[in-house]
Amino acid sequence: MRVLGIDPGIAIMGFGFIDKIGHRLVPVQYGSIQTTPDTAQEVRLQQIYESSCKLLDEYKPETVAVEKLFFNKNVTNAFSVGQARGVLMLAAAQRGIPIGEYTPMQVKQSVVGYGGAEKKQVQEMVKRLLGLASAPKPDDVADALAVAICHAHASGMSQLMNGATRR
Amino acid sequence: MRVLGIDPGIAIMGFGFIDKIGHRLVPVQYGSIQTTPDTAQEVRLQQIYESSCKLLDEYKPETVAVEKLFFNKNVTNAFSVGQARGVLMLAAAQRGIPIGEYTPMQVKQSVVGYGGAEKKQVQEMVKRLLGLASAPKPDDVADALAVAICHAHASGMSQLMNGATRR
Repeated sequence: MRVLGIDPGIAIMGFGFIDKIGHRLVPVQYGSIQTTPDTAQEVRLQQIYESSCKLLDEYKPETVAVEKLFFNKNVTNAFSVGQARGVLMLAAAQRGIPIGEYTPMQVKQSVVGYGGAEKKQVQEMVKRLLGLASAPKPDDVADALAVAICHAHASGMSQLMNGATRR
Repeated sequence: MRVLGIDPGIAIMGFGFIDKIGHRLVPVQYGSIQTTPDTAQEVRLQQIYESSCKLLDEYKPETVAVEKLFFNKNVTNAFSVGQARGVLMLAAAQRGIPIGEYTPMQVKQSVVGYGGAEKKQVQEMVKRLLGLASAPKPDDVADALAVAICHAHASGMSQLMNGATRR
Protein backbone atom coordinates (compact mmCIF):
# COMPACT_ATOMS: atom_id res chain seq x y z
CA MET A 1 0.00 0.00 0.00
CA ARG A 2 1.34 3.42 -0.95
CA VAL A 3 0.43 6.40 1.25
CA LEU A 4 1.03 10.09 0.61
CA GLY A 5 1.34 12.16 3.78
CA ILE A 6 0.86 15.92 3.55
CA ASP A 7 1.70 18.83 5.86
CA PRO A 8 -0.23 21.63 4.16
CA GLY A 9 0.95 25.22 3.93
CA ILE A 10 1.05 28.02 1.38
CA ALA A 11 4.80 28.79 1.62
CA ILE A 12 5.95 25.19 2.26
CA MET A 13 3.81 22.10 1.73
CA GLY A 14 5.66 19.02 3.00
CA PHE A 15 4.96 15.71 1.27
CA GLY A 16 6.10 12.14 1.85
CA PHE A 17 5.27 8.93 -0.01
CA ILE A 18 5.81 5.67 1.84
CA ASP A 19 5.11 2.06 0.91
CA LYS A 20 3.83 -0.41 3.46
CA ILE A 21 5.12 -3.84 2.50
CA GLY A 22 3.95 -6.40 5.05
CA HIS A 23 5.00 -4.82 8.32
CA ARG A 24 7.79 -2.75 6.77
CA LEU A 25 7.55 0.95 5.99
CA VAL A 26 9.67 2.02 3.03
CA PRO A 27 10.23 5.67 2.09
CA VAL A 28 9.60 6.26 -1.61
CA GLN A 29 9.98 9.99 -2.13
CA TYR A 30 9.70 13.05 0.07
CA GLY A 31 10.27 16.77 -0.10
CA SER A 32 8.33 20.01 -0.25
CA ILE A 33 6.39 22.21 -2.63
CA GLN A 34 7.47 25.79 -2.04
CA THR A 35 6.03 29.09 -3.22
CA THR A 36 7.32 32.62 -2.74
CA PRO A 37 5.51 35.46 -0.92
CA ASP A 38 6.05 37.92 -3.80
CA THR A 39 3.65 35.83 -5.93
CA ALA A 40 -0.12 36.51 -5.88
CA GLN A 41 -1.92 34.15 -3.51
CA GLU A 42 -4.11 32.62 -6.24
CA VAL A 43 -1.05 31.93 -8.37
CA ARG A 44 0.66 30.25 -5.40
CA LEU A 45 -2.44 28.06 -5.00
CA GLN A 46 -2.25 27.20 -8.68
CA GLN A 47 1.43 26.25 -8.30
CA ILE A 48 0.59 24.02 -5.31
CA TYR A 49 -2.30 22.43 -7.21
CA GLU A 50 -0.17 21.72 -10.28
CA SER A 51 2.72 20.30 -8.25
CA SER A 52 0.25 18.14 -6.28
CA CYS A 53 -1.28 16.80 -9.51
CA LYS A 54 2.19 15.96 -10.86
CA LEU A 55 3.17 14.13 -7.65
CA LEU A 56 -0.10 12.16 -7.54
CA ASP A 57 0.25 11.17 -11.19
CA GLU A 58 3.90 10.19 -10.86
CA TYR A 59 3.76 8.24 -7.57
CA LYS A 60 0.12 7.07 -7.68
CA PRO A 61 -0.65 6.71 -3.96
CA GLU A 62 -3.67 4.61 -2.97
CA THR A 63 -4.52 7.03 -0.22
CA VAL A 64 -3.64 10.50 1.06
CA ALA A 65 -3.27 11.38 4.75
CA VAL A 66 -3.41 14.94 6.12
CA GLU A 67 -3.43 16.41 9.59
CA LYS A 68 -6.86 17.37 10.81
CA LEU A 69 -6.45 20.96 11.87
CA PHE A 70 -8.91 22.27 14.35
CA PHE A 71 -7.01 24.84 16.28
CA ASN A 72 -4.39 27.37 15.48
CA LYS A 73 -3.22 30.41 17.37
CA ASN A 74 -3.20 32.46 14.21
CA VAL A 75 -6.54 32.47 12.39
CA THR A 76 -5.18 34.32 9.34
CA ASN A 77 -2.81 31.39 9.07
CA ALA A 78 -5.73 28.96 9.39
CA PHE A 79 -7.38 30.50 6.31
CA SER A 80 -4.13 30.33 4.40
CA VAL A 81 -3.38 26.71 5.39
CA GLY A 82 -7.01 25.83 4.60
CA GLN A 83 -6.66 27.24 1.09
CA ALA A 84 -3.53 25.21 0.39
CA ARG A 85 -5.15 22.10 1.88
CA GLY A 86 -8.23 22.70 -0.27
CA VAL A 87 -6.38 22.56 -3.60
CA LEU A 88 -4.46 19.43 -2.54
CA MET A 89 -7.72 17.73 -1.53
CA LEU A 90 -9.24 18.75 -4.86
CA ALA A 91 -6.33 17.14 -6.76
CA ALA A 92 -6.85 13.88 -4.79
CA ALA A 93 -10.66 13.94 -5.22
CA GLN A 94 -10.30 14.43 -8.99
CA ARG A 95 -8.31 11.16 -9.08
CA GLY A 96 -10.69 9.29 -6.79
CA ILE A 97 -8.00 8.92 -4.10
CA PRO A 98 -9.52 8.72 -0.59
CA ILE A 99 -8.26 11.09 2.11
CA GLY A 100 -7.64 10.14 5.73
CA GLU A 101 -7.49 12.81 8.42
CA TYR A 102 -5.69 12.51 11.75
CA THR A 103 -5.39 14.87 14.67
CA PRO A 104 -1.85 15.91 15.71
CA MET A 105 -2.39 13.82 18.86
CA GLN A 106 -3.24 10.71 16.83
CA VAL A 107 -0.10 11.23 14.73
CA LYS A 108 2.13 11.52 17.83
CA GLN A 109 0.45 8.54 19.47
CA SER A 110 0.99 6.45 16.38
CA VAL A 111 4.57 7.49 15.60
CA VAL A 112 6.04 7.92 19.11
CA GLY A 113 3.51 5.94 21.17
CA TYR A 114 2.60 9.02 23.22
CA GLY A 115 0.07 11.70 22.18
CA GLY A 116 1.90 14.47 24.02
CA ALA A 117 5.28 13.83 22.35
CA GLU A 118 7.61 16.69 21.42
CA LYS A 119 8.23 17.68 17.80
CA LYS A 120 11.83 16.46 18.12
CA GLN A 121 10.76 12.99 19.28
CA VAL A 122 8.41 12.70 16.30
CA GLN A 123 11.23 13.62 13.92
CA GLU A 124 13.60 11.11 15.53
CA MET A 125 11.01 8.31 15.27
CA VAL A 126 10.24 9.18 11.62
CA LYS A 127 13.96 8.82 10.91
CA ARG A 128 14.16 5.44 12.71
CA LEU A 129 10.92 3.94 11.39
CA LEU A 130 11.87 4.74 7.80
CA GLY A 131 15.57 3.88 8.23
CA LEU A 132 16.76 7.32 7.15
CA ALA A 133 20.31 8.57 7.76
CA SER A 134 18.99 11.84 9.23
CA ALA A 135 15.68 13.50 9.99
CA PRO A 136 14.28 15.06 6.78
CA LYS A 137 14.34 18.84 6.58
CA PRO A 138 12.50 21.19 6.76
CA ASP A 139 10.22 20.08 9.62
CA ASP A 140 7.25 20.14 7.24
CA VAL A 141 8.69 17.13 5.41
CA ALA A 142 9.16 15.13 8.64
CA ASP A 143 5.59 16.07 9.64
CA ALA A 144 4.27 14.88 6.28
CA LEU A 145 6.06 11.54 6.68
CA ALA A 146 4.73 11.26 10.26
CA VAL A 147 1.10 11.54 9.13
CA ALA A 148 1.80 8.99 6.36
CA ILE A 149 3.19 6.57 8.96
CA CYS A 150 0.15 7.18 11.17
CA HIS A 151 -2.14 6.31 8.29
CA ALA A 152 -0.14 3.16 7.41
CA HIS A 153 -0.40 2.04 11.05
CA ALA A 154 -4.12 2.82 11.23
CA SER A 155 -4.92 0.97 8.02
CA GLY A 156 -2.90 -2.06 9.22
CA MET A 157 -4.99 -1.97 12.37
CA SER A 158 -8.27 -1.81 10.47
CA GLN A 159 -7.17 -4.72 8.22
CA LEU A 160 -6.41 -6.71 11.37
CA MET A 161 -9.79 -5.85 12.81
CA ASN A 162 -11.61 -6.67 9.59
CA GLY A 163 -9.72 -9.98 9.55
CA ALA A 164 -10.78 -10.68 13.14
CA THR A 165 -14.39 -9.90 12.29
CA ARG A 166 -14.34 -12.25 9.36
CA ARG A 167 -13.32 -15.28 11.46
CA MET B 1 -16.71 45.73 -16.43
CA ARG B 2 -18.09 42.46 -15.07
CA VAL B 3 -17.27 41.52 -11.47
CA LEU B 4 -17.91 38.25 -9.68
CA GLY B 5 -18.32 38.63 -5.91
CA ILE B 6 -17.90 35.56 -3.71
CA ASP B 7 -18.85 34.75 -0.13
CA PRO B 8 -16.91 31.51 0.37
CA GLY B 9 -18.13 28.55 2.41
CA ILE B 10 -18.18 24.77 2.17
CA ALA B 11 -21.95 24.29 2.72
CA ILE B 12 -23.06 27.48 0.93
CA MET B 13 -20.91 29.59 -1.36
CA GLY B 14 -22.72 32.76 -2.35
CA PHE B 15 -21.94 34.26 -5.77
CA GLY B 16 -23.04 37.38 -7.59
CA PHE B 17 -22.11 38.73 -11.02
CA ILE B 18 -22.64 42.43 -11.65
CA ASP B 19 -21.86 44.66 -14.60
CA LYS B 20 -20.63 48.18 -14.12
CA ILE B 21 -21.84 50.25 -17.07
CA GLY B 22 -20.69 53.85 -16.63
CA HIS B 23 -21.86 54.66 -13.13
CA ARG B 24 -24.63 52.09 -13.13
CA LEU B 25 -24.45 48.71 -11.44
CA VAL B 26 -26.49 45.99 -13.14
CA PRO B 27 -27.09 42.55 -11.59
CA VAL B 28 -26.35 39.77 -14.09
CA GLN B 29 -26.77 36.54 -12.16
CA TYR B 30 -26.58 35.53 -8.51
CA GLY B 31 -27.22 32.51 -6.33
CA SER B 32 -25.30 29.93 -4.35
CA ILE B 33 -23.31 26.74 -4.76
CA GLN B 34 -24.46 24.32 -2.08
CA THR B 35 -23.03 21.00 -0.90
CA THR B 36 -24.39 18.54 1.65
CA PRO B 37 -22.67 17.49 4.91
CA ASP B 38 -23.13 13.77 4.18
CA THR B 39 -20.64 14.07 1.30
CA ALA B 40 -16.88 13.63 1.89
CA GLN B 41 -15.12 16.96 2.31
CA GLU B 42 -12.84 16.46 -0.69
CA VAL B 43 -15.84 15.62 -2.89
CA ARG B 44 -17.61 18.78 -1.69
CA LEU B 45 -14.50 20.76 -2.64
CA GLN B 46 -14.54 19.12 -6.06
CA GLN B 47 -18.24 20.06 -6.49
CA ILE B 48 -17.46 23.68 -5.53
CA TYR B 49 -14.50 23.76 -7.90
CA GLU B 50 -16.52 22.37 -10.81
CA SER B 51 -19.45 24.72 -10.22
CA SER B 52 -17.03 27.66 -9.95
CA CYS B 53 -15.37 26.69 -13.26
CA LYS B 54 -18.77 26.48 -14.95
CA LEU B 55 -19.85 29.89 -13.63
CA LEU B 56 -16.55 31.52 -14.67
CA ASP B 57 -16.78 30.01 -18.15
CA GLU B 58 -20.42 30.96 -18.62
CA TYR B 59 -20.36 34.53 -17.28
CA LYS B 60 -16.70 35.40 -17.98
CA PRO B 61 -16.04 38.02 -15.29
CA GLU B 62 -13.03 40.30 -15.73
CA THR B 63 -12.28 40.15 -12.06
CA VAL B 64 -13.25 38.26 -8.90
CA ALA B 65 -13.75 39.89 -5.49
CA VAL B 66 -13.71 37.98 -2.19
CA GLU B 67 -13.82 39.00 1.42
CA LYS B 68 -10.45 39.05 3.10
CA LEU B 69 -10.96 36.93 6.17
CA PHE B 70 -8.58 37.48 9.00
CA PHE B 71 -10.58 36.67 12.05
CA ASN B 72 -13.18 34.16 12.94
CA LYS B 73 -14.44 32.95 16.27
CA ASN B 74 -14.39 29.37 15.11
CA VAL B 75 -11.01 28.24 13.80
CA THR B 76 -12.29 24.88 12.49
CA ASN B 77 -14.62 26.99 10.41
CA ALA B 78 -11.68 29.11 9.23
CA PHE B 79 -9.94 26.02 7.83
CA SER B 80 -13.12 24.92 6.13
CA VAL B 81 -13.86 28.35 4.62
CA GLY B 82 -10.20 28.57 3.58
CA GLN B 83 -10.45 25.27 1.71
CA ALA B 84 -13.54 26.39 -0.21
CA ARG B 85 -11.94 29.75 -0.94
CA GLY B 86 -8.80 27.96 -2.15
CA VAL B 87 -10.53 25.97 -4.89
CA LEU B 88 -12.44 29.05 -6.08
CA MET B 89 -9.19 31.05 -6.25
CA LEU B 90 -7.59 28.19 -8.17
CA ALA B 91 -10.41 28.20 -10.73
CA ALA B 92 -9.91 31.97 -11.23
CA ALA B 93 -6.09 31.70 -11.41
CA GLN B 94 -6.33 28.96 -14.05
CA ARG B 95 -8.30 31.41 -16.23
CA GLY B 96 -5.96 34.34 -15.54
CA ILE B 97 -8.72 36.28 -13.77
CA PRO B 98 -7.32 38.64 -11.13
CA ILE B 99 -8.69 38.50 -7.57
CA GLY B 100 -9.39 41.51 -5.38
CA GLU B 101 -9.66 41.11 -1.61
CA TYR B 102 -11.57 43.42 0.72
CA THR B 103 -12.01 43.40 4.48
CA PRO B 104 -15.59 43.23 5.82
CA MET B 105 -15.10 46.84 6.97
CA GLN B 106 -14.15 47.98 3.46
CA VAL B 107 -17.23 46.24 2.06
CA LYS B 108 -19.56 47.93 4.57
CA GLN B 109 -17.88 51.29 4.06
CA SER B 110 -18.29 51.00 0.31
CA VAL B 111 -21.86 49.68 0.25
CA VAL B 112 -23.44 51.52 3.19
CA GLY B 113 -20.96 54.37 3.66
CA TYR B 114 -20.15 53.28 7.20
CA GLY B 115 -17.63 50.55 8.15
CA GLY B 116 -19.55 49.54 11.26
CA ALA B 117 -22.87 48.96 9.44
CA GLU B 118 -25.22 46.12 10.44
CA LYS B 119 -25.74 43.09 8.21
CA LYS B 120 -29.31 44.21 7.59
CA GLN B 121 -28.24 47.64 6.35
CA VAL B 122 -25.80 46.02 3.92
CA GLN B 123 -28.56 43.79 2.55
CA GLU B 124 -30.93 46.74 2.17
CA MET B 125 -28.30 48.76 0.28
CA VAL B 126 -27.43 45.81 -1.98
CA LYS B 127 -31.12 45.63 -2.89
CA ARG B 128 -31.32 49.36 -3.60
CA LEU B 129 -28.02 49.74 -5.46
CA LEU B 130 -28.88 46.86 -7.79
CA GLY B 131 -32.57 47.78 -8.14
CA LEU B 132 -33.78 44.40 -6.84
CA ALA B 133 -37.36 43.79 -5.70
CA SER B 134 -36.15 42.18 -2.47
CA ALA B 135 -32.87 41.37 -0.71
CA PRO B 136 -31.40 38.17 -2.18
CA LYS B 137 -31.52 35.09 0.05
CA PRO B 138 -29.71 33.38 1.70
CA ASP B 139 -27.52 36.05 3.30
CA ASP B 140 -24.47 34.54 1.58
CA VAL B 141 -25.82 35.73 -1.78
CA ALA B 142 -26.34 39.29 -0.52
CA ASP B 143 -22.82 39.22 0.95
CA ALA B 144 -21.38 38.05 -2.37
CA LEU B 145 -23.14 40.90 -4.20
CA ALA B 146 -21.91 43.36 -1.55
CA VAL B 147 -18.26 42.47 -2.13
CA ALA B 148 -18.83 42.71 -5.92
CA ILE B 149 -20.28 46.22 -5.45
CA CYS B 150 -17.31 47.15 -3.25
CA HIS B 151 -14.91 46.03 -5.97
CA ALA B 152 -16.84 47.92 -8.67
CA HIS B 153 -16.67 51.09 -6.55
CA ALA B 154 -12.97 50.60 -5.79
CA SER B 155 -12.02 50.04 -9.41
CA GLY B 156 -13.97 53.13 -10.44
CA MET B 157 -11.96 55.04 -7.86
CA SER B 158 -8.64 53.71 -9.11
CA GLN B 159 -9.56 54.58 -12.73
CA LEU B 160 -10.34 58.11 -11.54
CA MET B 161 -7.02 58.31 -9.74
CA ASN B 162 -5.08 56.90 -12.67
CA GLY B 163 -6.84 59.46 -14.83
CA ALA B 164 -5.81 62.24 -12.46
CA THR B 165 -2.21 61.00 -12.46
CA ARG B 166 -2.07 60.97 -16.22
CA ARG B 167 -3.00 64.64 -16.57
